[in-house]
Amino acid sequence: MSLLVIGTVAFDAIETPFGKTDKIIGGAASYISLAASYFTPKINIVAVVGEDFPKSYIELLENHGVNTEGLQIKQGEKSFFWAGKYHEDLNSRDTLITELNVLADFDPIIPKKYQDCKILMLGNLTPSIQRTVVERLERRPQLIVMDTMNFWMNVAWDELMITLKLVDVLSINDAEARQLSGEYSLVKAAKKIMAMGPKYLIIKKGEHGALLFGENQVFFAPALPLEEVFDPTGAGDTFAGGFVGYLAKSEIINFGAMKRAVIYGSTLGSFCVEKFGTDGIINLSHQQIEARARQFMELVTV
Amino acid sequence: MSLLVIGTVAFDAIETPFGKTDKIIGGAASYISLAASYFTPKINIVAVVGEDFPKSYIELLENHGVNTEGLQIKQGEKSFFWAGKYHEDLNSRDTLITELNVLADFDPIIPKKYQDCKILMLGNLTPSIQRTVVERLERRPQLIVMDTMNFWMNVAWDELMITLKLVDVLSINDAEARQLSGEYSLVKAAKKIMAMGPKYLIIKKGEHGALLFGENQVFFAPALPLEEVFDPTGAGDTFAGGFVGYLAKSEIINFGAMKRAVIYGSTLGSFCVEKFGTDGIINLSHQQIEARARQFMELVTV
Repeated sequence: MSLLVIGTVAFDAIETPFGKTDKIIGGAASYISLAASYFTPKINIVAVVGEDFPKSYIELLENHGVNTEGLQIKQGEKSFFWAGKYHEDLNSRDTLITELNVLADFDPIIPKKYQDCKILMLGNLTPSIQRTVVERLERRPQLIVMDTMNFWMNVAWDELMITLKLVDVLSINDAEARQLSGEYSLVKAAKKIMAMGPKYLIIKKGEHGALLFGENQVFFAPALPLEEVFDPTGAGDTFAGGFVGYLAKSEIINFGAMKRAVIYGSTLGSFCVEKFGTDGIINLSHQQIEARARQFMELVTV
Repeated sequence: MSLLVIGTVAFDAIETPFGKTDKIIGGAASYISLAASYFTPKINIVAVVGEDFPKSYIELLENHGVNTEGLQIKQGEKSFFWAGKYHEDLNSRDTLITELNVLADFDPIIPKKYQDCKILMLGNLTPSIQRTVVERLERRPQLIVMDTMNFWMNVAWDELMITLKLVDVLSINDAEARQLSGEYSLVKAAKKIMAMGPKYLIIKKGEHGALLFGENQVFFAPALPLEEVFDPTGAGDTFAGGFVGYLAKSEIINFGAMKRAVIYGSTLGSFCVEKFGTDGIINLSHQQIEARARQFMELVTV
């Protein structure tokens, strides 16, 4: 039984008040897989890159136990590329470049070996592609987790509504939850969004932590107050990766397990923002992860 | 041994997207005393009002066990009056009217009976008046807690620095912590502010909870996700009132006791924002308070 991750594998170029990068490895599926790799050895990825994508980046994923059989490499084409610049407080950013390239006609082909799937993680993509992946699985996975963003609410509302009905957990940020529901109160927003399909809802609030709703309960995981936040890129995907990675090795999947999964998601996210790009999550030890997860739990222990 | 509260007792006129009030009872010392009254029976107040201040409001305080011997009533003068209007999201507001009136030449006279004081709560006021109160106490209280605001950082920096050296706990919001320290990271801000005098620092983040720093530790109390927030006026003072009220009945005052005090401060604050002005905190039962405090603790229980 394994974790199937679908999403972008791409180039990012990032500028924050603390520095800038050239084209480095980015994309939702990259961050998700790397984060999940600390919890489960069976990760399968479905994504697409161009022939410009360095072999070393694919090896980085493989060295973390990620099966890249489902990573399509399109000869003569270029990888998806995003460039962005963060504002002084790191809470907002401007997109400088978005080149869809190979993503424009991405057809998510699922290798036969990937069919036996416990958890499906739908990284942020066109809702119709996310739905296609669900439809191409012969058996429904035990849990389907979906990420999306405000962009799809603006341009693909109807498709988004259809895909939402197919998933168990939706993971979005507070602004997206407010836009999706039309409610400012996150409690009211959660009720409306769960009526759209997902049985569980995670609302990420960045430096203010994350809320988990479901089974008529609510759980709050704080964010660790950090001395330095270097680069928030990928923090949400890393959170999702820690979340699904933890659940992939969990015997029972219920609200209790999801609470712990949210803590581990937040833990991985906190490592992510301390360095540029994926640098913060490619060289972690289990000891480091456990020590920081304890910090998260102690932070709120009365 | 008692709790001595100094601050404003005043009129507020509040407008939120959900309604508006005429002149109602307001002021930091009113909210602090009312909130603290659920924890400790010995509350002494030092404040000033004009002859326009209704007897019924003074009786409201007295009915909550607040000793108003130190509440000066200035004949022929008018009470401090603030009017404000909240924006749609309730996170920001415009001040419409500020009439200092009796506050302009407030001399905080401390009745003899008030001298035996365990905890001194300095509600938001000119730092020089806050300092005067500390100097007029014959024995230093076991704990001095201070609230302040960005306004004093702008117009009375030097006075503020002197007063900060005299207190044990400073309670401010995140924007104020950033302004006071010149640091965006709250961890860095806390270090700088504690170097200014206070051994403990509370950073209130409104709907995002509160952080407590001190004794080389950090504690985070979440805010309860509420379905309705009606009026945030007085929430910070109510928080402070719950905090000092809880500590006033606590035998030992250390970081552990302060963690629980922050939970009870947050609990009272959550009741405050559910109704207009002080309406949410004048008719609570101990059962209600305990049940909600449990909700706060369960919210983060893994």
